[in-house]
Amino acid sequence: MYIMDRLCELVSERGHVCVGLDTSPDYIPPLSRRLAVSDAEAVLAFNKAIIDATSDKVACFKVQVAYYEALGRAGLDVYAKTLAVIREKKALVIADIKRGDIADTALQYAKAHFEGDFEADFVTLSPYMGMDSIEPWLAYAESRGKGAFILMKTSNKGMSDFQNLEVHNYPNNLCASASLREELPRVYQVVGDKLTIIADQHMGKYGYGAFGAVVGADPKTGEEREETAALRERYGKLFFLIPGYGAQGGAAEDAALLLREGNGGVVNASRSILKAWTVKSANNSGKETDNDFAAEAGREAIITMRDAIREAAGK
Amino acid sequence: MYIMDRLCELVSERGHVCVGLDTSPDYIPPLSRRLAVSDAEAVLAFNKAIIDATSDKVACFKVQVAYYEALGRAGLDVYAKTLAVIREKKALVIADIKRGDIADTALQYAKAHFEGDFEADFVTLSPYMGMDSIEPWLAYAESRGKGAFILMKTSNKGMSDFQNLEVHNYPNNLCASASLREELPRVYQVVGDKLTIIADQHMGKYGYGAFGAVVGADPKTGEEREETAALRERYGKLFFLIPGYGAQGGAAEDAALLLREGNGGVVNASRSILKAWTVKSANNSGKETDNDFAAEAGREAIITMRDAIREAAGK
Repeated sequence: MYIMDRLCELVSERGHVCVGLDTSPDYIPPLSRRLAVSDAEAVLAFNKAIIDATSDKVACFKVQVAYYEALGRAGLDVYAKTLAVIREKKALVIADIKRGDIADTALQYAKAHFEGDFEADFVTLSPYMGMDSIEPWLAYAESRGKGAFILMKTSNKGMSDFQNLEVHNYPNNLCASASLREELPRVYQVVGDKLTIIADQHMGKYGYGAFGAVVGADPKTGEEREETAALRERYGKLFFLIPGYGAQGGAAEDAALLLREGNGGVVNASRSILKAWTVKSANNSGKETDNDFAAEAGREAIITMRDAIREAAGK
Repeated sequence: MYIMDRLCELVSERGHVCVGLDTSPDYIPPLSRRLAVSDAEAVLAFNKAIIDATSDKVACFKVQVAYYEALGRAGLDVYAKTLAVIREKKALVIADIKRGDIADTALQYAKAHFEGDFEADFVTLSPYMGMDSIEPWLAYAESRGKGAFILMKTSNKGMSDFQNLEVHNYPNNLCASASLREELPRVYQVVGDKLTIIADQHMGKYGYGAFGAVVGADPKTGEEREETAALRERYGKLFFLIPGYGAQGGAAEDAALLLREGNGGVVNASRSILKAWTVKSANNSGKETDNDFAAEAGREAIITMRDAIREAAGK
């Protein structure tokens, strides 16, 4: 069984929410932050409170390693401990590392993030160097039940710089999807096609390949909504990790376009969950907030988000 | 003064060699590896010996973080200490991290690798997400004298998957180089053009921008050699970090095509230097080798490589 199958089951049971633990020390209630001996310890205590209060309501967690690297060695210690807390809860975790390198170096990265101190269930990868930067990770899909999401179409403005370029010399016979043969594909579609080939070779029991794709849920206008629906159809074998919800501007309707028959993707939100306490706190003036208060506010934000996505996906 | 200017000066003084400290525990002489209390400590002792013996003969060092991440928390500790040893020697170091993320996350990565425990002089970055994943790093070029090399055209087979695709809808007026307007550019050329725009905005005193590009020196046939010379000409404002020498198959002649007037690039070699002791040792049978022997062999390999590149570049 691929770990992607387990993620599909958790989505069916608990909904589409993926909690992004992009924990900046600034996001922590001042009372709890002051009580900690260091910013790194403050982040760990905060993460524990959030994970404890929410793990039964989410499909998975995503830990953005940049926030931990920024705190140096102590930060990486907290990163390892955060992954361990999630594992103890029997929840799934995506290490958002966006690594991308080849050959021996890729194997070293895979060892780093699929074994040992920094072991996660999934990683995110960047495809720029080519498929030989993705393939070394695949051995772990079979041998250790690991998965990955590869950057395909992101929700930032800069996606137009390279991902969205139209490709002229793309061999038709390599197209995974017939409809692409009629038009010039974009770079991100070439990525999606190559990931579809991998999905066919490592296919899970719910119709999704062991490795999925990162596809952003930025706010969409009418025509863009049609394109997004077509993209979801075209890459039907790819399970999506969907960033861009909440603080980045995407709404439940935008995310729902990237889901499929009640499954097919997890929707990541970070700040809107981690900082939900700032809104709740404003409505309860006078009472100083702490990590427990923040965790409860986060849990409520998750339930609201889950229901909004389910409703939008059901339309 | 940009740190890229300092690198240009070191290239003039000491040649083009960049030593890649992609130190796998397997590369360490067995005698020294056995004496260490752990693989992580063995890597640190080996790195120290190499850095001590070679820092006056190289333009810079490049540390591939994947090899350290693979050893977990202890590995990252050795990574931080290796950077510190290089700094003590007043040598320059490129953190080969190939990170690539946007907005707040990019700022966190920049903080991680341009400040604190993991502070380096240069980083490598991946451009897939777009220029808004590169721009947050630029503030450090001005304020703290930091630099970066962005993946442009790599030397692995998979470079043809995405980097080498021909682009159809590239606006002519964005072309930094007139010759590109006559033909369909490749994705990697679009990357190079956008980096040239940045170079113009952050131009150093020797004609190279604060941020350079990673361009591989894979073995070249006749026609490819002409293309490579054209590429060097076209992206004249970009200083190149050139991998692919030695163990990856590229020769001094291939690397020299990417240099410019005796400067313009550093050529990375890792295994051929770190494991030079295995060749030297075979020629001195009977004597068991240690880190000092390996460091001396590495120094000799660097001098040979430096002279070969200088000769090829002078042709």
